[in-house]
Amino acid sequence: MAKLVEYKDMAPRAKAVVDTIARGRSIKPDEINNVWKALAVHPDVMERFAEELKAAMGPGSLDPLTKELVYLSVSIANGCDYCIASHGAMAAKKGMTVEMHEEFMAVVLAAQKGNKIAQAYRVPVDKAFEEK
Amino acid sequence: MAKLVEYKDMAPRAKAVVDTIARGRSIKPDEINNVWKALAVHPDVMERFAEELKAAMGPGSLDPLTKELVYLSVSIANGCDYCIASHGAMAAKKGMTVEMHEEFMAVVLAAQKGNKIAQAYRVPVDKAFEEK
Amino acid sequence: MAKLVEYKDMAPRAKAVVDTIARGRSIKPDEINNVWKALAVHPDVMERFAEELKAAMGPGSLDPLTKELVYLSVSIANGCDYCIASHGAMAAKKGMTVEMHEEFMAVVLAAQKGNKIAQAYRVPVDKAFEEK
Amino acid sequence: MAKLVEYKDMAPRAKAVVDTIARGRSIKPDEINNVWKALAVHPDVMERFAEELKAAMGPGSLDPLTKELVYLSVSIANGCDYCIASHGAMAAKKGMTVEMHEEFMAVVLAAQKGNKIAQAYRVPVDKAFEEK
Amino acid sequence: MAKLVEYKDMAPRAKAVVDTIARGRSIKPDEINNVWKALAVHPDVMERFAEELKAAMGPGSLDPLTKELVYLSVSIANGCDYCIASHGAMAAKKGMTVEMHEEFMAVVLAAQKGNKIAQAYRVPVDKAFEEK
Amino acid sequence: MAKLVEYKDMAPRAKAVVDTIARGRSIKPDEINNVWKALAVHPDVMERFAEELKAAMGPGSLDPLTKELVYLSVSIANGCDYCIASHGAMAAKKGMTVEMHEEFMAVVLAAQKGNKIAQAYRVPVDKAFEEK
Repeated sequence: MAKLVEYKDMAPRAKAVVDTIARGRSIKPDEINNVWKALAVHPDVMERFAEELKAAMGPGSLDPLTKELVYLSVSIANGCDYCIASHGAMAAKKGMTVEMHEEFMAVVLAAQKGNKIAQAYRVPVDKAFEEK
Repeated sequence: MAKLVEYKDMAPRAKAVVDTIARGRSIKPDEINNVWKALAVHPDVMERFAEELKAAMGPGSLDPLTKELVYLSVSIANGCDYCIASHGAMAAKKGMTVEMHEEFMAVVLAAQKGNKIAQAYRVPVDKAFEEK
Repeated sequence: MAKLVEYKDMAPRAKAVVDTIARGRSIKPDEINNVWKALAVHPDVMERFAEELKAAMGPGSLDPLTKELVYLSVSIANGCDYCIASHGAMAAKKGMTVEMHEEFMAVVLAAQKGNKIAQAYRVPVDKAFEEK
Repeated sequence: MAKLVEYKDMAPRAKAVVDTIARGRSIKPDEINNVWKALAVHPDVMERFAEELKAAMGPGSLDPLTKELVYLSVSIANGCDYCIASHGAMAAKKGMTVEMHEEFMAVVLAAQKGNKIAQAYRVPVDKAFEEK
Repeated sequence: MAKLVEYKDMAPRAKAVVDTIARGRSIKPDEINNVWKALAVHPDVMERFAEELKAAMGPGSLDPLTKELVYLSVSIANGCDYCIASHGAMAAKKGMTVEMHEEFMAVVLAAQKGNKIAQAYRVPVDKAFEEK
Repeated sequence: MAKLVEYKDMAPRAKAVVDTIARGRSIKPDEINNVWKALAVHPDVMERFAEELKAAMGPGSLDPLTKELVYLSVSIANGCDYCIASHGAMAAKKGMTVEMHEEFMAVVLAAQKGNKIAQAYRVPVDKAFEEK
């Protein structure tokens, strides 16, 4: 497992990243989750990921819950346990009801099946789907 | 590549599946896309997949575009070219603007990165994210 | 795409590998399939893979068709188009009927679903399934 | 980890699914494995998966052990720990000897290698392997 | 396939990205490769990826060829055909000899096997490998 | 989890494999790591993997650290926790500094992004990258 650095023990660069995230989520810096405690000793990756995540998940034309569901879909397809646990929790926090979760999983599982059907039967892309 | 069976040459079981899909999408049966032409000779898989897809993608508490984006996310994570082409086209048809597409891709790429960060640094799941 | 070297143009080490495979399959050396034509310029990988494949797919306590189906399952899960095409053809040659193919695909798709259910819902392994 | 619901605490829809599975495997309902205890709060996914699994794994032209090995192959390729543990145990129960397991793993590993060789060297599919 | 925008037809933001890359590689802007022609209509993703790539692949304590081999390894593991073709070409340009390529592939294939052995046999991590 | 067999309890074939590895790494046989303790009851896979690993990782035109980084890249892309832990430790032992690790991770993450960009936007391979 990664060595987890608590907020009080982080170097200034790492503290700065955590401060920004904590403010955005209205939590205290020492409530930050483990991925940031693990990244604290990898400041280049940490800063770049924090910045990319903020740009990606911030307000825009897609609503916050849709973005969480997209993030969660990718994490399930890639089998990333940490990300499934953390972004599942965040999706719930952003309004995912039990009913939405059921529907979400139904789509994820249908997509998994559709992906393998297309690959296993070697289905060629329709001309109509090619960019013009 | 798969052998593609045109609608007029399909057996009754396959025709019935295509008829239902075509009605739901307001297209003519012979405009059906390739995955169904490929599945026409595999009626068990075809019927089961058509039924599952209908149940998953139909109306519910998640809107149709969100469902398409979830489907597309899984397909990108799995690298399924056919599914990326077809569900990209369907997402556009269901209202995905250029701006939404940009945001969607930003989330997909951030998730890919987050997944690999969590796995590469072996981050343990926070107690707060465990089910109670 | 890989540069394909025809049998007559192969170096002796590559020819030796192809000769052994051709004899085992009762085909002429120049009927060898593309993977070997591509590997002809990579003799170390070629020899090692040929040897490993022979050891794995040869006679034993699992019958040849079961072995082909296992190979095909892995290839579908990994989305390897070349391998799906070639080992699909080999499975047919070794006795896979249309009915068996349908059943095989049903199991592959159920497994894909089971895999994603277990990961998405974060199911812990039963004590009964742990090695004693 | 998922919240596991014991049989006695399940809602009627979940109990019905477990009853059917338990009968089919000649076990008591409270001996059901974790995946079903986790799915008990997701009845739509639970019912659909139970039905699909039964249809896929039931008697047919492929024998039960071959079906388990196909399921296990997909699970290894996808890196699903729960499924490897559970279907490894089931394969042993359905007659997989130590010798068969060795041969099975040899094929899985050869397939992994063949998959990556085909992709890394970008081998084009042989004309002979294309559907006519 | 993606719609490819030639340099002369790109919007200023896209042209600026291509100019920087072309200068760094000592090529003319209209010799830029397809990924950038495809990204030209997705300027946010394009700018961010160009910047990340430059930061990652630029001079540092790892030499340029090692970085290309790491990029290529990931691309093979993920089965990304475009990336295997393009970064294979770049590795050759940065000094990968035929002999190095053979050795590289031997390591990639051994890693694939090691990965599947560890997962299939469910090997627990050694205490000695855990972070202290 | 796998059943781990300690060196003193291994059969002669397994002991012979461990002896060779231990000698090569200048460790005592009972300090061997878990993957070999797990493989001890699977002698065919064990011998073949040990031999392949030795041939791949041994001296050649690529230096030992580069080989470790390639192995680690594949393991991260495949999400193999055991291999990330063990080959991360080995890379450190073979000279990977903290700075190199940062750069390595930057390349791995850029590659993950490049892979998904190429697949999601369906970028066709440049003619210049095709083998002649």
